[in-house]
Amino acid sequence: MPQPYDLPLEQLQTYRPPLTREADFDAFWQATLEQLAKVPTDATFEEIAYPANGVRVFRVTYTGFGAAQIAGWYAEPVQSSANEQVPGLVHFHGYNWSFEGGVHDVVNWALHGYAVLGMLCRGQQSSEDNLVSPHGHMSGWMTKGILDKETYYYRGVYMDAVRAIEVLASRANVDAKRIGVIGGSQGGGLSIASAALSDIPRVVVAEYPYLAHFRRAIDVAPVGPYLEINEFFRRNGDPEIEEAAMRTLSYHDIMNLAPRVKAPTLVASGLVDEITPPSTIFAAYNHIEAEKRICVYRYFGHEYIPRFHTERLQFLQKHLQA
Amino acid sequence: MPQPYDLPLEQLQTYRPPLTREADFDAFWQATLEQLAKVPTDATFEEIAYPANGVRVFRVTYTGFGAAQIAGWYAEPVQSSANEQVPGLVHFHGYNWSFEGGVHDVVNWALHGYAVLGMLCRGQQSSEDNLVSPHGHMSGWMTKGILDKETYYYRGVYMDAVRAIEVLASRANVDAKRIGVIGGSQGGGLSIASAALSDIPRVVVAEYPYLAHFRRAIDVAPVGPYLEINEFFRRNGDPEIEEAAMRTLSYHDIMNLAPRVKAPTLVASGLVDEITPPSTIFAAYNHIEAEKRICVYRYFGHEYIPRFHTERLQFLQKHLQA
Amino acid sequence: MPQPYDLPLEQLQTYRPPLTREADFDAFWQATLEQLAKVPTDATFEEIAYPANGVRVFRVTYTGFGAAQIAGWYAEPVQSSANEQVPGLVHFHGYNWSFEGGVHDVVNWALHGYAVLGMLCRGQQSSEDNLVSPHGHMSGWMTKGILDKETYYYRGVYMDAVRAIEVLASRANVDAKRIGVIGGSQGGGLSIASAALSDIPRVVVAEYPYLAHFRRAIDVAPVGPYLEINEFFRRNGDPEIEEAAMRTLSYHDIMNLAPRVKAPTLVASGLVDEITPPSTIFAAYNHIEAEKRICVYRYFGHEYIPRFHTERLQFLQKHLQA
Amino acid sequence: MPQPYDLPLEQLQTYRPPLTREADFDAFWQATLEQLAKVPTDATFEEIAYPANGVRVFRVTYTGFGAAQIAGWYAEPVQSSANEQVPGLVHFHGYNWSFEGGVHDVVNWALHGYAVLGMLCRGQQSSEDNLVSPHGHMSGWMTKGILDKETYYYRGVYMDAVRAIEVLASRANVDAKRIGVIGGSQGGGLSIASAALSDIPRVVVAEYPYLAHFRRAIDVAPVGPYLEINEFFRRNGDPEIEEAAMRTLSYHDIMNLAPRVKAPTLVASGLVDEITPPSTIFAAYNHIEAEKRICVYRYFGHEYIPRFHTERLQFLQKHLQA
Amino acid sequence: MPQPYDLPLEQLQTYRPPLTREADFDAFWQATLEQLAKVPTDATFEEIAYPANGVRVFRVTYTGFGAAQIAGWYAEPVQSSANEQVPGLVHFHGYNWSFEGGVHDVVNWALHGYAVLGMLCRGQQSSEDNLVSPHGHMSGWMTKGILDKETYYYRGVYMDAVRAIEVLASRANVDAKRIGVIGGSQGGGLSIASAALSDIPRVVVAEYPYLAHFRRAIDVAPVGPYLEINEFFRRNGDPEIEEAAMRTLSYHDIMNLAPRVKAPTLVASGLVDEITPPSTIFAAYNHIEAEKRICVYRYFGHEYIPRFHTERLQFLQKHLQA
Amino acid sequence: MPQPYDLPLEQLQTYRPPLTREADFDAFWQATLEQLAKVPTDATFEEIAYPANGVRVFRVTYTGFGAAQIAGWYAEPVQSSANEQVPGLVHFHGYNWSFEGGVHDVVNWALHGYAVLGMLCRGQQSSEDNLVSPHGHMSGWMTKGILDKETYYYRGVYMDAVRAIEVLASRANVDAKRIGVIGGSQGGGLSIASAALSDIPRVVVAEYPYLAHFRRAIDVAPVGPYLEINEFFRRNGDPEIEEAAMRTLSYHDIMNLAPRVKAPTLVASGLVDEITPPSTIFAAYNHIEAEKRICVYRYFGHEYIPRFHTERLQFLQKHLQA
Repeated sequence: MPQPYDLPLEQLQTYRPPLTREADFDAFWQATLEQLAKVPTDATFEEIAYPANGVRVFRVTYTGFGAAQIAGWYAEPVQSSANEQVPGLVHFHGYNWSFEGGVHDVVNWALHGYAVLGMLCRGQQSSEDNLVSPHGHMSGWMTKGILDKETYYYRGVYMDAVRAIEVLASRANVDAKRIGVIGGSQGGGLSIASAALSDIPRVVVAEYPYLAHFRRAIDVAPVGPYLEINEFFRRNGDPEIEEAAMRTLSYHDIMNLAPRVKAPTLVASGLVDEITPPSTIFAAYNHIEAEKRICVYRYFGHEYIPRFHTERLQFLQKHLQA
Repeated sequence: MPQPYDLPLEQLQTYRPPLTREADFDAFWQATLEQLAKVPTDATFEEIAYPANGVRVFRVTYTGFGAAQIAGWYAEPVQSSANEQVPGLVHFHGYNWSFEGGVHDVVNWALHGYAVLGMLCRGQQSSEDNLVSPHGHMSGWMTKGILDKETYYYRGVYMDAVRAIEVLASRANVDAKRIGVIGGSQGGGLSIASAALSDIPRVVVAEYPYLAHFRRAIDVAPVGPYLEINEFFRRNGDPEIEEAAMRTLSYHDIMNLAPRVKAPTLVASGLVDEITPPSTIFAAYNHIEAEKRICVYRYFGHEYIPRFHTERLQFLQKHLQA
Repeated sequence: MPQPYDLPLEQLQTYRPPLTREADFDAFWQATLEQLAKVPTDATFEEIAYPANGVRVFRVTYTGFGAAQIAGWYAEPVQSSANEQVPGLVHFHGYNWSFEGGVHDVVNWALHGYAVLGMLCRGQQSSEDNLVSPHGHMSGWMTKGILDKETYYYRGVYMDAVRAIEVLASRANVDAKRIGVIGGSQGGGLSIASAALSDIPRVVVAEYPYLAHFRRAIDVAPVGPYLEINEFFRRNGDPEIEEAAMRTLSYHDIMNLAPRVKAPTLVASGLVDEITPPSTIFAAYNHIEAEKRICVYRYFGHEYIPRFHTERLQFLQKHLQA
Repeated sequence: MPQPYDLPLEQLQTYRPPLTREADFDAFWQATLEQLAKVPTDATFEEIAYPANGVRVFRVTYTGFGAAQIAGWYAEPVQSSANEQVPGLVHFHGYNWSFEGGVHDVVNWALHGYAVLGMLCRGQQSSEDNLVSPHGHMSGWMTKGILDKETYYYRGVYMDAVRAIEVLASRANVDAKRIGVIGGSQGGGLSIASAALSDIPRVVVAEYPYLAHFRRAIDVAPVGPYLEINEFFRRNGDPEIEEAAMRTLSYHDIMNLAPRVKAPTLVASGLVDEITPPSTIFAAYNHIEAEKRICVYRYFGHEYIPRFHTERLQFLQKHLQA
Repeated sequence: MPQPYDLPLEQLQTYRPPLTREADFDAFWQATLEQLAKVPTDATFEEIAYPANGVRVFRVTYTGFGAAQIAGWYAEPVQSSANEQVPGLVHFHGYNWSFEGGVHDVVNWALHGYAVLGMLCRGQQSSEDNLVSPHGHMSGWMTKGILDKETYYYRGVYMDAVRAIEVLASRANVDAKRIGVIGGSQGGGLSIASAALSDIPRVVVAEYPYLAHFRRAIDVAPVGPYLEINEFFRRNGDPEIEEAAMRTLSYHDIMNLAPRVKAPTLVASGLVDEITPPSTIFAAYNHIEAEKRICVYRYFGHEYIPRFHTERLQFLQKHLQA
Repeated sequence: MPQPYDLPLEQLQTYRPPLTREADFDAFWQATLEQLAKVPTDATFEEIAYPANGVRVFRVTYTGFGAAQIAGWYAEPVQSSANEQVPGLVHFHGYNWSFEGGVHDVVNWALHGYAVLGMLCRGQQSSEDNLVSPHGHMSGWMTKGILDKETYYYRGVYMDAVRAIEVLASRANVDAKRIGVIGGSQGGGLSIASAALSDIPRVVVAEYPYLAHFRRAIDVAPVGPYLEINEFFRRNGDPEIEEAAMRTLSYHDIMNLAPRVKAPTLVASGLVDEITPPSTIFAAYNHIEAEKRICVYRYFGHEYIPRFHTERLQFLQKHLQA
């Protein structure tokens, strides 16, 4: 296992590089949200057989940004009813990590007493990605549409995430005042992004969030999908390309979105994480102005951290089930 | 990802090498079980805080083979009571895979309605391993005490597993007639071994079981802990050493134990599994005489197989919750 | 360097598995071509500065399948004119291998006396890919839209390739009776596919062609993009998914398209090629009924083969410049 | 080969971090030695056939710490006799490096004129390890019993090493006033540790000694067995676990034992050693107060260093054969 | 892809370590050139068939340093004649990179209007290396004859390179006033070295030049042939060996030769180049006193850099074809 | 560790492919030996300080094939004298494995009662290689001069080895009737080759001998220096090149030399040896007609095999010291 390679912990704790927001940062997201609002949601819930008692499980579809058909899993405790509303969770998966096993995670969360919607990111195995990029890109999604903030892949994903929260909040047996967003890696980035762009979430759990502080990420991450961006710049070395791409990324950087988060936020960072380097996580975390807490794991990388699972169960219980 | 490297599927399905039992195979296990029976169990259950509703969670200890103190996790549905007994599961973890995260798995199973005891294998991070080997061994546990069937490491583990089942069966709120044994890799091997050595289990789920058909395993497994045996033979090339070790292994080979299994058994094998080669799994499986089913996954190795999770949930539900 | 791992050469030379065409194979491609024909081509050629004498270089765009904007490079010998037409080449690049350096290859070919159009595959860095898949996919393009022959990624690419040939043939200074298609890997697959779907090409050069005999490819290729298909099947293990995908692939398998090729064809295969295994190449090659020749390189893998460069220069010269 | 990655040589030469001894450090070792003294040694020497003239070779066993049966090889020059005593060497092998080949090393040293006892570390292939850890551990020996200084694996090994020296010193034909301790890696650590805990050794040769300055080792070693400690902390993230383990290690850290060494000491450090980082070696070396010398090898890692073999032959000859 | 690991760009730009020339540096090269001059050149040009119009291609041989028979490829535009002289290029290949494919590169350059001579480095696959080293060496050529400046391998190569330029300049249809030297890696080093040792070149293009600033190179290059030197020092650790070798290298270090370059020079450096670390390139570059320009590629290593190809075409066109 | 990958042991034991000797095979070696005989030996022995009692150590030089200055180490027991002659050993090292540490091996053998000459192969770090190849080659020595049997690198090495035996035999205190040749890998190949070409050796010990059955070796060896030959064929794909090289190799193939060996021969083969595949070793071994024995090690590759060390000590003792 590799050793800590990023900044020392003392420096991480105060690492807070200046935001890189463009002047129209908030306006862009305002306009984007308005564009989303014009598309009807049309959520459908189709119950499916699942060999577990105590939960009901559904295949969900709804209309996301640009009218894409977004799929997901939904599970709720059997006992929940309109009379007795349960708290809700929207779960976002990691990058290129959408597979049928997601349903089991969703069920496990439901067994903990939450109505859970697991969104499947557009383009990644199941959900439709109908945003057409006017240009090609590196294999993967990191550089799809990257030359313009309007066409960037994550613009659609962020809006689909906002809508996933709305879909969950509109369930009769879900208490819309007790909804959390959770996820790891890309899912952690989406948790922060959606909490910055929606007023619904009351709690955020972001495990080693991705999509943070791209400028540094592409310099320090030894492996992982941040490097798709480096590779994109190798394919076309025009400095204007790099400039345009970095400008687009600034709008989608969760470091820039972090100050908009209003809900209590729990973050995890492993100090030997080579995919989402600690400094990129702290860069975003240190810009969150809401109640927050970061759990640091000296001996962990980008992987399952059992002790953090306890932390997030507690954090969610405290904020949603108390 | 590597491609199928072992026998073709058609051959696997009928691959049933002769058993390699010594004449005193059954007598050895009979004597071993009697030796276990002489040690009082002395199970203790210490409830611990766990941030989930609907379950109670305990740190378990009990006295295992040779009076070793064995630790484990135990979780049960809150609603279970002596009046309304619940079915039970004993869960065995993979090789060198004992860590605090095990508690979360145990809890998730409990949320599915089972009283679950997750045994922590002796020596592997938490439980005491007091079996003293009269000789040293290769790093790891595969060759600890391997020169004599009486001193072999897994003799103790198998007995600890039998006793774990007894500990669970003795819980007042557990229906001793509805107990299953489950696990993957080493845990799959222990599931089969304990079901062969105990009459209690009514169902067995063994995901890519380890500890099977050692003679072939050390020839075909490209990676993984079977190779500790090869390494042991490198450290001392005396043919008598190899002969003694292979004789010891024959007693602990789940292929040889398989015919003793009486409970319905569900097995999984990934065809690109380089740690527990498919042919070793089929060798054991094809010797099981009880009701059985094997799920084959062409594109999976030694890893999480989501579709098998559904299979085992169904299998357990059918046999324990029906 | 790894050694030959696929079938022995003697077996390769006669390896000719049955075609896997569906009944409507030809009808499908007929309909697809008709659909392409309905979209106006609208090719534009914008001359760009390039520091070489003797050639003129252009950025090309044209409207491809589904009206996508396809980009490419075009270079022609300065001396060519409408009076003195030159032979033409369409060049297709390898998988995920679209980058600005492509212009240099195009120029080098032009300096050999050809008018050359280097198509940039849709989605891969430069050209627009506007085919929306109704479902997500594995990172990369191999499984984009794979569940239906109508939506599969390569359906669009094949049509864009056919059209690239038409664009080149329509240049006044190009002799439409002397056009060849060339490329390696994906580019070799596209050369064969486009020569099967267009009457224009008079010669085909396919270096270790990709997109051949998928059924075997996903079983024997140790590395490379064929494995995206395996990975897709891991994400969703529904047998119907695999069946649907394999059916879609059968339409796009160049083994199935090979009998339609009418132009003389030169193929290369390296015997230690782990990305496009020799048996998949021979499977397609042995189904070509036109004049053909295969060059086998015992010591080469999926890489630059200098001796084959001489072969293809000769082959093209003979068929296009004689 | 990797390049120097640890501190620059100038800093290494003066790198002398504060000792981390607990208050009862000396008392602990005093008590441990007393505990050892209570066990009778019971050494046996069984002569074995060995195809070399000039030496006699024996399989040795003796009773070590906690009455464990420790094995080893012993070889002595044929000419040695009680009248003409020869100098002696105790040789300690590297971590997880106990194998039958050890006898050849012992013989080669004997051919140089020394009576040599090669101890085989408890648990590592041959010798019995009867110290029962009250808890499990990571695969390997680094964390066996690590939660308490009384139960830690190396406590037993250090005592076995002290006794090995005594066993050698008690041979009639060995001059107990001319005994050295030698070894590389773990064997280097044991040489320093045993020289700190026994008054017998008159010279110490420690090639890239292991078991030094654990606090830094687990931060800078990219590979090797120090990382078993990191892995142990991953299995259970309780801060008290880490604290207890680090406290235990402090007692066994050869940096803390170094000031007790009274015999002339020769140390080697390779500057590209990734298993025993140079800074950990210098940390211990710079705390040795006896006559000492360190040989630094810029281009060597954790491997055979021919030039150091000459150095140690000279050093031993000077101190033992002069 | 690895990230920048060498000095930051700002430091690179001014990184100019002191020269390490010995007092007789210039005298040594003067004597060496005189020694070369005594050997008759005896160049032969044997035309060979090559399937391209517009060029004539030849196998060249000439007598190099020490009368070795040096081979190469030569290609010239068909239209060139004594009346209408063309500019010329000498091309040097990379280390251990001499193969038959070199002819294609030479042809491509000829198609751009240059008479091109591609020298094949002595010993590396084709050309004779008759310089006998009085001692053996590490596999490869970096340490052949390294103990004396007179016998070092590159002394011969540098002279062969100077002579290659002379051979080209003596062609009737080549304009000896318009000759450039080009190459990458070893070829870049040879371009600079030959331009420092010959008055003929009017332009130099050195892509990530090798053979620069050896003292630092062997400390920072993680991979590549610089490490043959480290390995040589491992084989014999005598400090005098290292000292002698470093002295020899000082004469052949292109950093020390750089101030002698008088022709305009274009250099490339990729910031993630692990074979020719950026700092070694800048060390040489910053000592060039002629007109110069360095192109820095943040995302490229030791590989094909398309954008630099454009740069060098322009640079050559400007200086040789204007 | 990889598993057996070559032929099964039963097939190996009878694997005896036809010899590939050319008609003038014996004549070639006869002429070569005569050529060697014309060069005076001029051996010098310079005693050096070595910190061991009981041996005297020398740096040796002698004139080898083509008058090259060959270096080596020589050590002899102090007690040896002209009156009391000792048996002798010539030791050959592995490929690219010549380093100063060789002296220690030589000394250790001398301490066993042998006068030992360790030859350092020409070109490999220390000895002069003055054979000039008329063409270049791949990095390494395997293809140096390979296009003609007269110029091939190993022709010189084989003759140097024959002469090393003569040098040793001419020492006054060495019993020329009791000389053995030993070595591993390349050293094993040289042991067999020199015993085939010299009448002096009375015993041969060849540990996993290299340079055997090249035709198969380049097809089955996954790694190691046999692949330099494959790489050479990649550099120039001319079939005549391959044919010429294979013809040259046939003269130097120890399989073809094996029938000429008259001395008792001991061979070792590890079944997981990826550098000298077992089938190549058996191919040579099964052609030896002298008294012979092969030791097979199922769990060993190309590495130190302790048990074989015992075997060779016994074999040498029996044949040289009895």
